[in-house]
Amino acid sequence: MRQVPDGDTRERSVCRDCGYVSYENPKVVVGSVVAHGGRVLLCRRAIEPRRGFWTLPAGYLELGESIEEGARREAFEEAEAQIALDGILAVYSISRIGQVQVIFRARFADTADPAFAPGPESAEVALFAWSDIPWDEIAFPSVRWSLDAWQSRAHGPLGAPAGNPAEDPRGSRRLQPEASTPEACRIGSAL
Amino acid sequence: MRQVPDGDTRERSVCRDCGYVSYENPKVVVGSVVAHGGRVLLCRRAIEPRRGFWTLPAGYLELGESIEEGARREAFEEAEAQIALDGILAVYSISRIGQVQVIFRARFADTADPAFAPGPESAEVALFAWSDIPWDEIAFPSVRWSLDAWQSRAHGPLGAPAGNPAEDPRGSRRLQPEASTPEACRIGSAL
Repeated sequence: MRQVPDGDTRERSVCRDCGYVSYENPKVVVGSVVAHGGRVLLCRRAIEPRRGFWTLPAGYLELGESIEEGARREAFEEAEAQIALDGILAVYSISRIGQVQVIFRARFADTADPAFAPGPESAEVALFAWSDIPWDEIAFPSVRWSLDAWQSRAHGPLGAPAGNPAEDPRGSRRLQPEASTPEACRIGSAL
Repeated sequence: MRQVPDGDTRERSVCRDCGYVSYENPKVVVGSVVAHGGRVLLCRRAIEPRRGFWTLPAGYLELGESIEEGARREAFEEAEAQIALDGILAVYSISRIGQVQVIFRARFADTADPAFAPGPESAEVALFAWSDIPWDEIAFPSVRWSLDAWQSRAHGPLGAPAGNPAEDPRGSRRLQPEASTPEACRIGSAL
């Protein structure tokens, strides 16, 4: 049932039998703009959502990982690329879907051997020159934002991270509380 | 029960009745170093953990919030302070306990009236000159890290955010998978 737990100020999902409070929190997405010789690495999605569209190697941070470890793991899982991170390129709030995205500027760990290949969630992985990026087939707004952030910070020391573009409200439209409640679902005692 | 869901690579808590997968993800903490006239705002904790120790106004990001909204809300809840954010001062991975912390540099929204007072989770709130900070009574390592980051970035444009100090491993010691599994708990169908 939905109720405000003791000492809390928000309604949460609470088990009426044992009092377990299911906190639903934003998730952290970690990803990278991996560049090599002025070109950037993109992955064509083999899975929904946005199957067939191009994205950065990125995904949910796992428990026990630092943000850097997560970004390197995602590059390996989605693009079979060993990468080295320069630093944080951008931090986006996609509050509409309960995400915080931390995007790094990165390069191949061995720049003499910029090896990559599609991982299980990618149909294709490729390096694109800026003018060849398939802008009409980009999977998510924050991929475009990240590429724009990279273009203005491609070289030299990284300064302050980019944030949500002021002119694009697609990240910050509020999530309705109703929409955050999962479909009714029996969570058995055998969990 | 614990099992690897289809298409996944990690063991998760899965309900054997309905297949519900309980993903346990890192949580986002947002907070601020709020400075006024060279002094910084600290809150003495009225609640566990680390009751009686000093911390920054900070807490868990809620669903539907941007990181900036969350940081402003926490400053209001814990220190009854209306603040304005300069930008991201630091991003820490506290992977030991499954947290990513985004810490802002901030000031009072109305610098002519730097009002603050203890919120329900604070026993006391005060502005401290650097030399008066109660270093032996700081609640968490990342509070110290944030204050150090602020001292070296107190004025002017913010550059690249600080990260975990290389010499202090307390954030990055890995969380054991066992430790991430909550105590056995009946989650009833009435959730």
